[in-house]
Amino acid sequence: MPRLVLYGNRESGYSYKVKLALTLLGLEHEYRPVDLTIARNHRPPEFREVSRYGEVPVLVTDGEALVQSNAILMHLARTTGQLRGECDPDRTVEWLFWEANRITFSISNLRFARYFTNDTSPDVIAWLESRARADLDRLDEEFRTKDAFLLGSTISVADIACCSYLFWPEQTGIDYSAWRNVRAWLDRIRAVPGWAPPYGLLG
Amino acid sequence: MPRLVLYGNRESGYSYKVKLALTLLGLEHEYRPVDLTIARNHRPPEFREVSRYGEVPVLVTDGEALVQSNAILMHLARTTGQLRGECDPDRTVEWLFWEANRITFSISNLRFARYFTNDTSPDVIAWLESRARADLDRLDEEFRTKDAFLLGSTISVADIACCSYLFWPEQTGIDYSAWRNVRAWLDRIRAVPGWAPPYGLLG
Repeated sequence: MPRLVLYGNRESGYSYKVKLALTLLGLEHEYRPVDLTIARNHRPPEFREVSRYGEVPVLVTDGEALVQSNAILMHLARTTGQLRGECDPDRTVEWLFWEANRITFSISNLRFARYFTNDTSPDVIAWLESRARADLDRLDEEFRTKDAFLLGSTISVADIACCSYLFWPEQTGIDYSAWRNVRAWLDRIRAVPGWAPPYGLLG
Repeated sequence: MPRLVLYGNRESGYSYKVKLALTLLGLEHEYRPVDLTIARNHRPPEFREVSRYGEVPVLVTDGEALVQSNAILMHLARTTGQLRGECDPDRTVEWLFWEANRITFSISNLRFARYFTNDTSPDVIAWLESRARADLDRLDEEFRTKDAFLLGSTISVADIACCSYLFWPEQTGIDYSAWRNVRAWLDRIRAVPGWAPPYGLLG
């Protein structure tokens, strides 16, 4: 079993993705929180050495650093043979890129602007919210014809990626009641054995 | 040889990525332009059928539709064994996700706001520009210690993805002179046999 070290932060949905995957896979690992309020070039040298883009999460596997949450998810799915869904692997990759370019971008930035800053222009917030709503529409549409997970009857890395920032609705300032299918899917994720919300897993 | 059909649009850097990869790989394909000024649900049924997220590009391989430009790039690199760089495959995936979540997001939206709209709030434009500048800083830093391509001495899908929106500086309203290493890298890409700019490849 490789020795795993995860660097993350409790407010980072990107970190949550990886922590949730490791938890559902039952992979033992050491979790090291990184204080993101410290400027990048003042963070601990051990973190700066492994974080190729200066961001969390980083997963160190037997000394090899892996960065970018979705790249880590793909690596874990490939090396464990689990959380891969039941479709062509290309479908997984499509969802992961949709997520990176769409829903996580819009929702994470909207949450950041609303919850962690008080000087973001209302126009920027409105722009991010309109994108977030379009992305939630698209995700909701997906579950009009599916009553399980994105890639089959069990949870996969695509679900883990797409849900990551959706467990902070009050911080994001979005009421999900309009997206019934998304809400039902999030409930199915909550029911997966081992699931816990971000602050539950990241301390 | 599979029969390849690419749906794209000349203004889409996402389409350009795939068209450029197919060109450098010397893969024969039929290119079908999609008019993005037509509302999504009025676009030709043959396109709506294959475009899972309603977006360009779509690459149809022997009847199988592939969407999300970076998922298509990964598919092409895997199936041809080319454009894969000379590093651990995880490095490729990391760059592709950095690109999806970072530079292409910021630069493509900045270009769209500045060149294709006239009513985007100046605050939104300023927000996008500050992100674009941070992303260009990061990319420039990468080439402080590299004098070739992102993943070695030859062009890979990581370079193709990251450069896709950078050939429209005047439309984006960014003067690249501050990012010397990025400019030198773009010149190396221009020198790759078969390279052509977006409008040169997409008509």
